[in-house]
Amino acid sequence: MLSLDKVFNAQTVLKNIIRETKLVRAHGIAHDCELYLKPENLQITGSFKVRGAAYKIAMLTEEEKKKGVIACSAGNHAQGVALAATKNGIKSLICLPDSAPISKVEATKGFGADICLVEGCYDDAHQKSLELKESEGYTFLHPFDDENVIAGQGTIALEILNDLDNIDAILVPIGGGGLISGIAYTAKQIRPSVKIYGVEVLGAPSMYNSVKNGEIEALATVSTIADGIAVKKPGENTFALVKEYVDEIALVTDDEVSSAILTLIENQKMIAEGAGAAAVAAVMFNKFNLKGKRVVAVVSGGNIDVTSLSRVIDRGLLKSGRSSSLLIELIDKPGQLQIIARIIADCGANVTGVHYEKGDTESVDGCFLRIAMETRDFEHVSMITQSLRNEGFKIV
Amino acid sequence: MLSLDKVFNAQTVLKNIIRETKLVRAHGIAHDCELYLKPENLQITGSFKVRGAAYKIAMLTEEEKKKGVIACSAGNHAQGVALAATKNGIKSLICLPDSAPISKVEATKGFGADICLVEGCYDDAHQKSLELKESEGYTFLHPFDDENVIAGQGTIALEILNDLDNIDAILVPIGGGGLISGIAYTAKQIRPSVKIYGVEVLGAPSMYNSVKNGEIEALATVSTIADGIAVKKPGENTFALVKEYVDEIALVTDDEVSSAILTLIENQKMIAEGAGAAAVAAVMFNKFNLKGKRVVAVVSGGNIDVTSLSRVIDRGLLKSGRSSSLLIELIDKPGQLQIIARIIADCGANVTGVHYEKGDTESVDGCFLRIAMETRDFEHVSMITQSLRNEGFKIV
Repeated sequence: MLSLDKVFNAQTVLKNIIRETKLVRAHGIAHDCELYLKPENLQITGSFKVRGAAYKIAMLTEEEKKKGVIACSAGNHAQGVALAATKNGIKSLICLPDSAPISKVEATKGFGADICLVEGCYDDAHQKSLELKESEGYTFLHPFDDENVIAGQGTIALEILNDLDNIDAILVPIGGGGLISGIAYTAKQIRPSVKIYGVEVLGAPSMYNSVKNGEIEALATVSTIADGIAVKKPGENTFALVKEYVDEIALVTDDEVSSAILTLIENQKMIAEGAGAAAVAAVMFNKFNLKGKRVVAVVSGGNIDVTSLSRVIDRGLLKSGRSSSLLIELIDKPGQLQIIARIIADCGANVTGVHYEKGDTESVDGCFLRIAMETRDFEHVSMITQSLRNEGFKIV
Repeated sequence: MLSLDKVFNAQTVLKNIIRETKLVRAHGIAHDCELYLKPENLQITGSFKVRGAAYKIAMLTEEEKKKGVIACSAGNHAQGVALAATKNGIKSLICLPDSAPISKVEATKGFGADICLVEGCYDDAHQKSLELKESEGYTFLHPFDDENVIAGQGTIALEILNDLDNIDAILVPIGGGGLISGIAYTAKQIRPSVKIYGVEVLGAPSMYNSVKNGEIEALATVSTIADGIAVKKPGENTFALVKEYVDEIALVTDDEVSSAILTLIENQKMIAEGAGAAAVAAVMFNKFNLKGKRVVAVVSGGNIDVTSLSRVIDRGLLKSGRSSSLLIELIDKPGQLQIIARIIADCGANVTGVHYEKGDTESVDGCFLRIAMETRDFEHVSMITQSLRNEGFKIV
């Protein structure tokens, strides 16, 4: 059985393995509540997962430790298990589909794990890890549906409550439910009045649906940029704990999550992965009634690959008018580009791309010109458009 | 005169204004030294500048406080002054050229300053601020060449030495020299054996040149992505302090700085601006002899606009083979794109852009196809190139 004693014990055990992340007061993100961030993206391995994995491993028997542990993950769980095992001086083997990004494989290796690349998809790697568990006697480490793992994640609530008084609410992202189970259970024992709000993404609402319908439901597919919480089915333990201790669950969209990632970069100078930004997105887009409250949003992790990050930023720039692209129909004669370049320069925008194409223009001599620019905001874009129109250009 | 007492006094004065940023052990950035980061990018206002500004303001007479302060800056100094003045309950006026990015103007306003937009460039805004100082009696706050400002920055050294024992070296970026003067002076008083290494960018080596030549030299122009340290001329006070207390200065390139920004994102989940990443770049590219040493690199700030950040990331992806672009010469006949798309997909890369153009091809029926892709690394790019060649395509 989960108990507060276990969580306190986990805190002691984890003392020299993890970082105690300090709450950060986040100004300028929420205007009607007092927002703090619990930055587990700055945790060692870049996510909270190392807490649960390290406590689970520490609680194994000497014999189990000797045989080593196995896990299947291409993400934060893999790195958490790898580091936790290494710090405890035991062997870890991580099964990954061979399509896993090289950067994640290298990071996991870097924390000391042996890697078993399995041909196929995630399910194939999972199957392989169960086979190896049987044949080799490894202990299989479940990423969330395990009491000791949950107790490990619960240490986050101890740190939060120790760091700040009079907290009204804690917002926590939900994937399999291990993180929120640990936090909700622990926080409610110590401070029953604190509200625990869960945040899932619209593209993977497995816990939301399960709680709503009163029984565990599995999704056929999940689709979200928040890959860390793209979980098809909640655990038995986590479902029971969420039902009992979580006050409310809300859903956020991928665009809301992207916007939160960008805001965390600009306002807090920190990188969150999609799952890590979900709770902040819920604050920004008013998914709960937080007016006048003192609120902590758990930023669960920061392991987003730079390619995805680059896309999120590009989309964010586009959505806030800081980059834009105009399609201009013009008569194909010398000097046109020069005039357009001059107008745009006079408006103070910076051209980043030019592309000519023929197409279904009004005149047979016509062509299309696509201009990509760095702009200040939507007002700036309107100003440029208007200036071009004033000189007779047709913006499509 | 600067004294250790003043720095300790500054620490007391700043207690409720600034954040005490905790050292972060940075694994995986340097392989032959034990590297810690002093994350002043996570400081309130996103840079260390608030320390010096707040101490300077606190030391003003009551009469000076009543009249308010004025500064000229489009960057970190402006935000530091604005917040420090507001926290001390006094008025601040910031002069900016009207070409300053809207985001910086808004941020400065957000910290409570009045804004004076001046037509023209930085020098015009500076001139205006001096005029207003005369006519209105404001106190002008110099960004670096001021003893109290330097004492304020020195508090960083107190925190570093309090946070970690047996430090061998501290690496500090240099712009005007206020930050390194404060840190070097303070650290050498308390722990004379600690080495202080300064880092400037190749595009703005004003302190480097001045120290080398034994007298203050002004640069005609500066050019670097590290705008926070693009300073043409060191201060009188800072030059004297750097000469006395700094052991060595090295230069880093913009590409090295970009690479450090990307590394801080991937390894530490934190955003640094160009100036903020300069010291880390010096560690990564071995500008000093740090082998086996315990080293602290000061990450001075994180205020990089997302447009620049996006460019840095894109360049970083390109330079590490994680994005790439191929120019393929082909015969312009139906089905060619399909074959190429199939080959690339089989190799596991993701196409992000396709562009056809006519040009100086070998055959009169030829054309060029430019394909942009997300790739894993340079090896992956070679594999794709080889596969295309194997099927008869000509890569230009």
